[in-house]
Amino acid sequence: MCLLEQINYQLILSDIYEEIANIDYEGNVANYIPQLAKVNPEKFGIHLCCLNEGNYAMGDSNEKFSIQSISKVLSLTLAFSMMGDKLWERVGVEPSGNPFNSLIQLETENGIPRNPLINSGALVISDILVSNLVNPKADYLSFIRKISGSDEIQYNTAVANSEKETGFRNTALINFMKSFGNIKNDPETVLDFYFHLCSIEMTCKELARTFLLFANHGTLTGTGECIVSRSQSKRVNAIMQTCGFYDEAGEFSFKVGLPGKSGVGGGIVAIHPDKYSIAVWSPKLNKKGNSTKGMKTLELLTTRTELSIF
Amino acid sequence: MCLLEQINYQLILSDIYEEIANIDYEGNVANYIPQLAKVNPEKFGIHLCCLNEGNYAMGDSNEKFSIQSISKVLSLTLAFSMMGDKLWERVGVEPSGNPFNSLIQLETENGIPRNPLINSGALVISDILVSNLVNPKADYLSFIRKISGSDEIQYNTAVANSEKETGFRNTALINFMKSFGNIKNDPETVLDFYFHLCSIEMTCKELARTFLLFANHGTLTGTGECIVSRSQSKRVNAIMQTCGFYDEAGEFSFKVGLPGKSGVGGGIVAIHPDKYSIAVWSPKLNKKGNSTKGMKTLELLTTRTELSIF
Amino acid sequence: MCLLEQINYQLILSDIYEEIANIDYEGNVANYIPQLAKVNPEKFGIHLCCLNEGNYAMGDSNEKFSIQSISKVLSLTLAFSMMGDKLWERVGVEPSGNPFNSLIQLETENGIPRNPLINSGALVISDILVSNLVNPKADYLSFIRKISGSDEIQYNTAVANSEKETGFRNTALINFMKSFGNIKNDPETVLDFYFHLCSIEMTCKELARTFLLFANHGTLTGTGECIVSRSQSKRVNAIMQTCGFYDEAGEFSFKVGLPGKSGVGGGIVAIHPDKYSIAVWSPKLNKKGNSTKGMKTLELLTTRTELSIF
Amino acid sequence: MCLLEQINYQLILSDIYEEIANIDYEGNVANYIPQLAKVNPEKFGIHLCCLNEGNYAMGDSNEKFSIQSISKVLSLTLAFSMMGDKLWERVGVEPSGNPFNSLIQLETENGIPRNPLINSGALVISDILVSNLVNPKADYLSFIRKISGSDEIQYNTAVANSEKETGFRNTALINFMKSFGNIKNDPETVLDFYFHLCSIEMTCKELARTFLLFANHGTLTGTGECIVSRSQSKRVNAIMQTCGFYDEAGEFSFKVGLPGKSGVGGGIVAIHPDKYSIAVWSPKLNKKGNSTKGMKTLELLTTRTELSIF
Repeated sequence: MCLLEQINYQLILSDIYEEIANIDYEGNVANYIPQLAKVNPEKFGIHLCCLNEGNYAMGDSNEKFSIQSISKVLSLTLAFSMMGDKLWERVGVEPSGNPFNSLIQLETENGIPRNPLINSGALVISDILVSNLVNPKADYLSFIRKISGSDEIQYNTAVANSEKETGFRNTALINFMKSFGNIKNDPETVLDFYFHLCSIEMTCKELARTFLLFANHGTLTGTGECIVSRSQSKRVNAIMQTCGFYDEAGEFSFKVGLPGKSGVGGGIVAIHPDKYSIAVWSPKLNKKGNSTKGMKTLELLTTRTELSIF
Repeated sequence: MCLLEQINYQLILSDIYEEIANIDYEGNVANYIPQLAKVNPEKFGIHLCCLNEGNYAMGDSNEKFSIQSISKVLSLTLAFSMMGDKLWERVGVEPSGNPFNSLIQLETENGIPRNPLINSGALVISDILVSNLVNPKADYLSFIRKISGSDEIQYNTAVANSEKETGFRNTALINFMKSFGNIKNDPETVLDFYFHLCSIEMTCKELARTFLLFANHGTLTGTGECIVSRSQSKRVNAIMQTCGFYDEAGEFSFKVGLPGKSGVGGGIVAIHPDKYSIAVWSPKLNKKGNSTKGMKTLELLTTRTELSIF
Repeated sequence: MCLLEQINYQLILSDIYEEIANIDYEGNVANYIPQLAKVNPEKFGIHLCCLNEGNYAMGDSNEKFSIQSISKVLSLTLAFSMMGDKLWERVGVEPSGNPFNSLIQLETENGIPRNPLINSGALVISDILVSNLVNPKADYLSFIRKISGSDEIQYNTAVANSEKETGFRNTALINFMKSFGNIKNDPETVLDFYFHLCSIEMTCKELARTFLLFANHGTLTGTGECIVSRSQSKRVNAIMQTCGFYDEAGEFSFKVGLPGKSGVGGGIVAIHPDKYSIAVWSPKLNKKGNSTKGMKTLELLTTRTELSIF
Repeated sequence: MCLLEQINYQLILSDIYEEIANIDYEGNVANYIPQLAKVNPEKFGIHLCCLNEGNYAMGDSNEKFSIQSISKVLSLTLAFSMMGDKLWERVGVEPSGNPFNSLIQLETENGIPRNPLINSGALVISDILVSNLVNPKADYLSFIRKISGSDEIQYNTAVANSEKETGFRNTALINFMKSFGNIKNDPETVLDFYFHLCSIEMTCKELARTFLLFANHGTLTGTGECIVSRSQSKRVNAIMQTCGFYDEAGEFSFKVGLPGKSGVGGGIVAIHPDKYSIAVWSPKLNKKGNSTKGMKTLELLTTRTELSIF
């Protein structure tokens, strides 16, 4: 039990899990690359880490899955820690509105993406990391291993290569931004790095532990190392809150009320500052590309604990 | 002193006020109608209400100003309390992206505005209130007086009428939505109601007291009356967080980290759930239409208290 | 027979009429106002006027119908004759791309419509005529009677009033442009004038005779009066060519290859400079809002005569 | 003298040339690749070919320049002759409206470009040719040599390669369309072919002779070979008329009144069906990217001959 609030998280998660697990939610597993398409759609895992102590888990919480876009928060964090507020010269912090604005916005805003959690913004962040890391892929993996506290985290090269073969839209985006001068390196190199970031695999437990630093104002709970400042951590959370769920950021904010991020692999991670981080995994996605059971789990969690940031 | 956190708000506000008051920030007073243009640009007031006790004020905090768009949160609240989730059939909860998308989004999304805090969404909310209130203007004013605890609150009819004379864009928006069937009443009637809502005048003190209910999960601190449910209050806060500052919602979230709403009269109100509400007034607006000193005040407040929802 | 080219137009039109008349083309009569909805969908008339002599007709060519948007070419012509090239300060001459760009284009281009044949452009032209005519409705009707050579031409007031009751989109457009300062008169007055222009009724014969001046370089064939200069007539034709069929201007240019203009009443008029003008009427419209049989008639005409401007 | 109309073209061109040559028109030479930037901005040549006989020339009419986008009409012609109307399943015939709609239109219209003369459309045409020609680059060059009647026409490989190095926007476009399935071949291969097409160099004389077939209903004047059918030639002309000048197609149509096409190398070609073709070259471009002197020359030509298609 998480001592701070005397909430019985295990009981609440267990109830939610039972309630949701056997409902046949609509939705489809991401199928644009074979590696994601072959995942068992019925997988369902939850892991919640309280800041000071407890860990609570249900279902397939120790099984690896592709974190995909969730990686964008972590690459943002590394770039922010290296560049500080200079970062915001190359990417904004505003929500992006509906999906088909992304290209017109790049056009009218001179190749500056709206925020670092949409594809265009994550590509700019990748470009910054390629410029600033000595061995981008190796250095980034070291960073992830450090903040997750797990040396077992790996890229899935098959997934990364598969993305490359079908990534025409990302190729379009990066070349479009290059035409505005907002990509400094060779587009192929940046794309290769970006696809590797997205191919990282974690379990719910690893993912929840990795994001615990954002509930802890930027400091690792284990070692006490400060990854980003208190102010920077607040800002990363604010960006997750307003931009973390594509065209469903408002909906998530409205129903769940926590900063979070989803990925097309079916993972969702959310944090409650000063309290906990939670990762949910269920591969079936709703029409907006977010895990159906993941969204429902978090909605029930904040409703039943009567705790959200609002 | 607000007992809960042992923070000396008066000292902090006093420091911030001194620091900001005499800096000559750039910006212009809204001048599209004469009544707003003639306001003294140097006015600057702050009022903070803690949930359980203290009230802290600085400067022109007892002077009336036009709350303008801040009224949209209150009309949303009244409509939400009457209609419940049926409301969301006629207006969304997603941020709107950059300003010139409003019309194209109405076009591609069949006249359903993105959220209730942009003009199109507030017009739909006004239409709903016109349909559901017996005497719309009188009933709405009664509602505002109840939640503010002040019988002195009034519409400024001169401001409302002046808006009508220059409100061609709002006339365009409402007729465009009417063409999609998402306005049920006569456009003129709804516009008249809408311009009256925006013409309400409050002092910083009244405004902070009015919004205290959103820090208190929907319940009035004075009478204990529940205006909206705990869940509904959370949702109004979430909408303020993602949509409260036009094209600067992300920026406000990023720098301040509190749900809030601004108006072109120079007012900004923000709330920290379970802690306080705060209203700031300074008429000079930045390029995005938000009070320059108001934004700065709130940024310094959350930085110095080290308290935000993130 | 039109002596100039020794083409037997009567035979060609007769063949085309027979071929098309009994085919059950898909499409719907415009039904947004009752007066248009009650027209017999099977009506089909053709009238072709050669410049020097012959008149050739088939079917319901002497029955009145609502010319609707075809009127926009005539109001443009009157405004152009009065204002000359100063006109182009308030409206452009470029095609408008796809329909839902009209509003975003007004936004990005400061309220200047792309061309005078889309609704926004025709509203600006109406505003110009309201400013410049002493008795706008009476003076405009006199102009139409002069160029058509027929005193029997009338507005249909019932149609005009009906348009007003459902014209929310046009109300939106005109108020939006007014907000940019590109409408000088009261929006209601301009709309009333605009809806009257569109309500004019003509027969195919009258319509063909009215447009003959554009085949004759701006001069009336009967009286020899010069309505617009040779250069101005060329320009009106060029605008019809590039902008006359909403989102199907390219298609019409591609298949027919003549300058022309359509209306939702089912009329289409086209001209071949130095040769003829032709009006076709059939109320069933294709998905783009142009008369299905009208388009087919003109395509067959230019294919079989092997004469187009290209 | 061109016998048909007894117009003294040499005298008219000579007058126009004198009038324009020494005026210091504003404008800049295209400078995005070094090969174009180093062209002498003062170059100015004209060549007019009458259908039956005469050739009239002024200035630098025998100097080679890069035809750039003018090539799009020729690649369209070859693809149209091979595919017939099946071509229109992959590209439209409507004008594209203002430039920044190109990407949003591809998004909303599923990767089908608006017409074959904008970059996206020309890339689809290039993809079709790559699929259908045995040796694309060699076969295309043979085609151009045949219709121009000149074996001296060459690609400029330095120009083509230079385009590749800066062609990020075209890379973006082709990958975006590939993501919709409207590009069948490898993007790199298609881009290489496309950049070669645009690098072709011609003199004004060669260019005018090449386009004479479109004044002659698709048939080569020299050999009598039919390149495209009468109907196809009409359609290519119609597309030039509505789409040949980027965002200035309406302006060109309005002022000049002939089908034509421009390129950023400073060339413009136009044709008057049944009469003549004309090529003008002057490297200084106006803000829309069309040759300033070229536009003026053609405007004066149609004004003084009092002959346009309208």
